[in-house]
Amino acid sequence: MPLFPLALALALQPQPQPVATTPAPPLEKITPNAIVDQAPPAAWRAIDPDNLLLIELEGGKRVAIELAPDFAPVHVENIRHFARAGWWYDAEIVRVQDNYVTQWGVDDPDKPLPAGVVATPPAEYVRSLDGLKVTGLGYADPYAAGAGFADGWPVALYSDGTASLTHCYGAVGVGRGYDPDTGTGSELYTVIGHAPRHLDRNIAIVGRIIDGMEHMTALPRGTEALGFYAEGVEKPQLERVYLASMVEPAERPAYEVLRETSDEFARYKRVRANRNDDFYKVQQGGVDLCNVQVPVRPVE
Amino acid sequence: MPLFPLALALALQPQPQPVATTPAPPLEKITPNAIVDQAPPAAWRAIDPDNLLLIELEGGKRVAIELAPDFAPVHVENIRHFARAGWWYDAEIVRVQDNYVTQWGVDDPDKPLPAGVVATPPAEYVRSLDGLKVTGLGYADPYAAGAGFADGWPVALYSDGTASLTHCYGAVGVGRGYDPDTGTGSELYTVIGHAPRHLDRNIAIVGRIIDGMEHMTALPRGTEALGFYAEGVEKPQLERVYLASMVEPAERPAYEVLRETSDEFARYKRVRANRNDDFYKVQQGGVDLCNVQVPVRPVE
Repeated sequence: MPLFPLALALALQPQPQPVATTPAPPLEKITPNAIVDQAPPAAWRAIDPDNLLLIELEGGKRVAIELAPDFAPVHVENIRHFARAGWWYDAEIVRVQDNYVTQWGVDDPDKPLPAGVVATPPAEYVRSLDGLKVTGLGYADPYAAGAGFADGWPVALYSDGTASLTHCYGAVGVGRGYDPDTGTGSELYTVIGHAPRHLDRNIAIVGRIIDGMEHMTALPRGTEALGFYAEGVEKPQLERVYLASMVEPAERPAYEVLRETSDEFARYKRVRANRNDDFYKVQQGGVDLCNVQVPVRPVE
Repeated sequence: MPLFPLALALALQPQPQPVATTPAPPLEKITPNAIVDQAPPAAWRAIDPDNLLLIELEGGKRVAIELAPDFAPVHVENIRHFARAGWWYDAEIVRVQDNYVTQWGVDDPDKPLPAGVVATPPAEYVRSLDGLKVTGLGYADPYAAGAGFADGWPVALYSDGTASLTHCYGAVGVGRGYDPDTGTGSELYTVIGHAPRHLDRNIAIVGRIIDGMEHMTALPRGTEALGFYAEGVEKPQLERVYLASMVEPAERPAYEVLRETSDEFARYKRVRANRNDDFYKVQQGGVDLCNVQVPVRPVE
């Protein structure tokens, strides 16, 4: 064991330990995906068609977003109004900033809002922990007092009794200006790089992309400040934005989310923190919240 | 203060605290970039032209990689041999897996290796902490006993006296098969999503992309397993791969890295953990290693 230089001794922190009330079983030699494949039907919950927002881009590319009304009810209801009114028919992707966000919306601040949209929603950046059923991550979170999962959402937990959705890869948030503007939901962005969790509690997160993420990431980066596309550059168009509930049941895209309360999710989480198939030489014994993506699958 | 449900009480962990030996000064109301702009010339170190690998893609797109010989000396020396021999003249990008990696190399396992290349390098996945001068991150790391920066590299520190480079966004690693193959360095990948740090200590990291990252991320995702491009799909070509030291000084691209021992880096790190310009309503009081990108700038 080498001697630690002083700077290093200061840098070392106690190693986070998994929360466990019973002795841990031996590590499984299995991939996370193989565990997910074993989950029985009861381990999955269907996504409500009113919480499933679909964006069609050019060339038939489809992006599916699950909305989070339990965290940002007013913003989500606004988004439903925008979708039902067809308000986004001339929307486009305005900004792609590498390792940060892709943002889309209507580039016209004077366009009248559809009926029912709340022009100045409350700052739905956190919610109370009351009534939230959380399954713990089991490892320390550098940004919050704790972290875990609630009904399929990665959440951060704060010592003041609040919880927030988190800016993990694929999270969808509401573009906003400065105080007191929280944004209406007319302009949205998604995280396309390492989780910028400094944005947590500073922006309303309204959902996450559960399918078609590559259509938001494999895009030319904008060359202007903040990744905005330069004047004259052709911007990717949003051809259609709608809720699954707006189309006939037979035509509806549908998805299921693995319940974090299931045995399979518990095994999946543990193997994400201790990868143990033939490729791996060393297990980490830990994992961060955004590296435990909650599994989603399409339903045919 | 609401009552915490039982599941939540189990999930809560002690809040990580910054390491501080003197009372912290008041938070600056400034952006991280503005701090970096204030750094004097002495706060920057130049990158050795033998450690600067350049990749030119079609259309004059250039990607710059700083190599890390202090962590993976044999693999880095191999890479220099490949570059000097022009071995990668027919290399292409073979795989782009969303939220994971872009990988490139020569798709011919029988192509003879250039002189000097070590065919089976040692597993340079960790190094000893001995002789490594680390500046601590100051916040807990879910994957390791500690985390910090060493000569511009984000490193994880383990209780067995070792350190590893980390799979942060832009990290460059060596593609490999199973035991005892560590890969020669002929096939490389870079991280294009949320840090897959379960790979730390399982693969040789040889460097990181310091410029042109968008040319590796704004690419169509492959549709085959692991994001490999399907048969018949045109793959992006690597037109030229070379070390800065292989070209005349007047023609050399050059970059500088902000020293983590500088006052400006300490301020930058603190503001990354406590964003405090006009946009932010709440400071996190913490940050994860890969969300503190070490600043790099081109030198004209």
